Amino acid sequence: MRPAGAWLGGTGTSLHSSGEFGLIARLRDLIERRTAAAGIPQGQIAVGIGDDAASLVPSPGCETLVTCDIQVAGRHFVPGWTTPRAVGARCATISASDIGAMGGVPRAAVVSLGLGPETAVEDVEAIYEGILDKLLDLRCLLVGGNVTSLEQGLLVDMTVLGEVEAGRAVRRDTGRAGDQVWVTGLPGSAAAGLALLDAGVRLGDAPPLDRLIGAYLEPEGRAREGRALGMSGAVTSMIDVSDGLIGDLTHMVEGRELGVVLMERSVPIGGDLHAAGERLGRPPEGFVLSASDDYEILFTMPGERAGDAVRAIREISGMPARRIGELTPGIPGQVLIEDAGGRRRAAAAGGWDHFSPDS
Amino acid sequence: MRPAGAWLGGTGTSLHSSGEFGLIARLRDLIERRTAAAGIPQGQIAVGIGDDAASLVPSPGCETLVTCDIQVAGRHFVPGWTTPRAVGARCATISASDIGAMGGVPRAAVVSLGLGPETAVEDVEAIYEGILDKLLDLRCLLVGGNVTSLEQGLLVDMTVLGEVEAGRAVRRDTGRAGDQVWVTGLPGSAAAGLALLDAGVRLGDAPPLDRLIGAYLEPEGRAREGRALGMSGAVTSMIDVSDGLIGDLTHMVEGRELGVVLMERSVPIGGDLHAAGERLGRPPEGFVLSASDDYEILFTMPGERAGDAVRAIREISGMPARRIGELTPGIPGQVLIEDAGGRRRAAAAGGWDHFSPDS
Repeated sequence: MRPAGAWLGGTGTSLHSSGEFGLIARLRDLIERRTAAAGIPQGQIAVGIGDDAASLVPSPGCETLVTCDIQVAGRHFVPGWTTPRAVGARCATISASDIGAMGGVPRAAVVSLGLGPETAVEDVEAIYEGILDKLLDLRCLLVGGNVTSLEQGLLVDMTVLGEVEAGRAVRRDTGRAGDQVWVTGLPGSAAAGLALLDAGVRLGDAPPLDRLIGAYLEPEGRAREGRALGMSGAVTSMIDVSDGLIGDLTHMVEGRELGVVLMERSVPIGGDLHAAGERLGRPPEGFVLSASDDYEILFTMPGERAGDAVRAIREISGMPARRIGELTPGIPGQVLIEDAGGRRRAAAAGGWDHFSPDS
Repeated sequence: MRPAGAWLGGTGTSLHSSGEFGLIARLRDLIERRTAAAGIPQGQIAVGIGDDAASLVPSPGCETLVTCDIQVAGRHFVPGWTTPRAVGARCATISASDIGAMGGVPRAAVVSLGLGPETAVEDVEAIYEGILDKLLDLRCLLVGGNVTSLEQGLLVDMTVLGEVEAGRAVRRDTGRAGDQVWVTGLPGSAAAGLALLDAGVRLGDAPPLDRLIGAYLEPEGRAREGRALGMSGAVTSMIDVSDGLIGDLTHMVEGRELGVVLMERSVPIGGDLHAAGERLGRPPEGFVLSASDDYEILFTMPGERAGDAVRAIREISGMPARRIGELTPGIPGQVLIEDAGGRRRAAAAGGWDHFSPDS
């Protein structure tokens, strides 16, 4: 656990003086104002905030997706490194990402907040603003939640409901032998950002590194790209990158008859990752392979469908995606890394620290 | 906040030695074993535990209900007073209760657990056993979740999804002037149980008081009765009692043109509540009127439908229910208490402490 610091314990209206019911009323007003301003049709909401439960009308022919993610101060985010609004945005992005990685659309969310006595009401509102920034941008409604006091600290637990056409949910473990493995964006950015923060580098200290720090503090998420990939019909499996490239490739094959060969040369390493590696005295590949919560999308498909997948992403956002490997029979559950010379070595879920730094 | 105590910090396999992935694997095995043993058809689960999100097939013609409730050690339960299994059961009951109070059926749940380093793996498994005891008894499946470490303490955040026929969700604020107000069971039991625990009385210390302590530690919940009432078509509004009788009656009328008259003589007060009042030197009515999380069901209906409602409950469980008041025009948003002589006085959401002890 890292220290909490900064705005936990900052100035502002204390929860004690506002009271739980006062806070809930303020948050409800905030949600209603923001939702109305976003102009999102609420026809699917039969019962909204303020009853025992919310009630949603499913879209005909769709399945309901559900995922939850708890984020704890000192473990998943450090208040001293970020803003309350960015914390809220991060939580919403992480949960929405899981819906996108199933090929679905986020529709509605509920949030549980645990608040230490040092949290100011203004900061709680800013967390909600950040949540709403992301959710409403995805046209997903916040339909309920609850707030409780903690002895210390801060946590946000978000549950997002999504929808996907019946039978079209894209699983993580359904890729087939011979399928290509692709990834969006630049995985490893979040790990580098976190390492920079741990080393004392902050946003603005070294502008060329800001993208990496931002990737950790406020990941963009690829919920839209995941949805587009699912709808393209091209992909055979998908997962979002929350445990690092090796970790999530492992999730794609664990317990199966096939494995993954990751082509080392194909792994995208940007100039800023090289700069971060130099600054921290670490090989930049390490950030890509070991634990990193990037919320990029890993996906598989037969080579002949690659054009369809690339086109689907281009139409949504133009996010780059890149082929990095192949699902391969005969190496059950394994992830192997193939170097430029064609030599293969075993990777492990732990990632980079299992390899020699000069490999 | 109350102290944590007892099994937090007890013996057993520490989380540190088990590791997060080891724990998750154990919990997944546990869920699969219990679910298979319960023999619940899983046809509605398109994708279960172990992917980015679970996917559920909605029942045709139904809306999807969603509710979440976070329970924190020291605030909502005290480890020293109870068992891990009872904590899990309590959390599941509380969330399922909200679905029942909408007239719905709980179908699927996800759970986020936050665990301090002092929590033993065996205790986490026992919490899950308790959750599954309650959920599976309601034929509700546990389809996902996540576990995170905390610096200290323990918390459980449950989200339950339910279903209700389209347009049949029963709201809390739709009762009509002239409707009778009824409640199941014996509200106030949980408040008395908590007061006894606070005074040092434990389960088994005074057997005649055990029912009250049990009502707080492990409420039964009325999800089935709520569903039966909703399906009967007799009720005009429903809410579960989580803020005490006065608090939840207030929720039924706040911001509306009508109010509630609560008939003091009709409020059920059992022999054990009298005994608890005597032991603690407090009037037993106080437990009923002030904050108490009983998870009984408050409901309203026109008098001519009372027989249908009573019959619906009798067919499900035989739980007693009782008429305690009436929705009344001309007292907007108010809750009034009427004594045996027909005199009315104002109640307030805070409950008993707003009244003189000899009233």
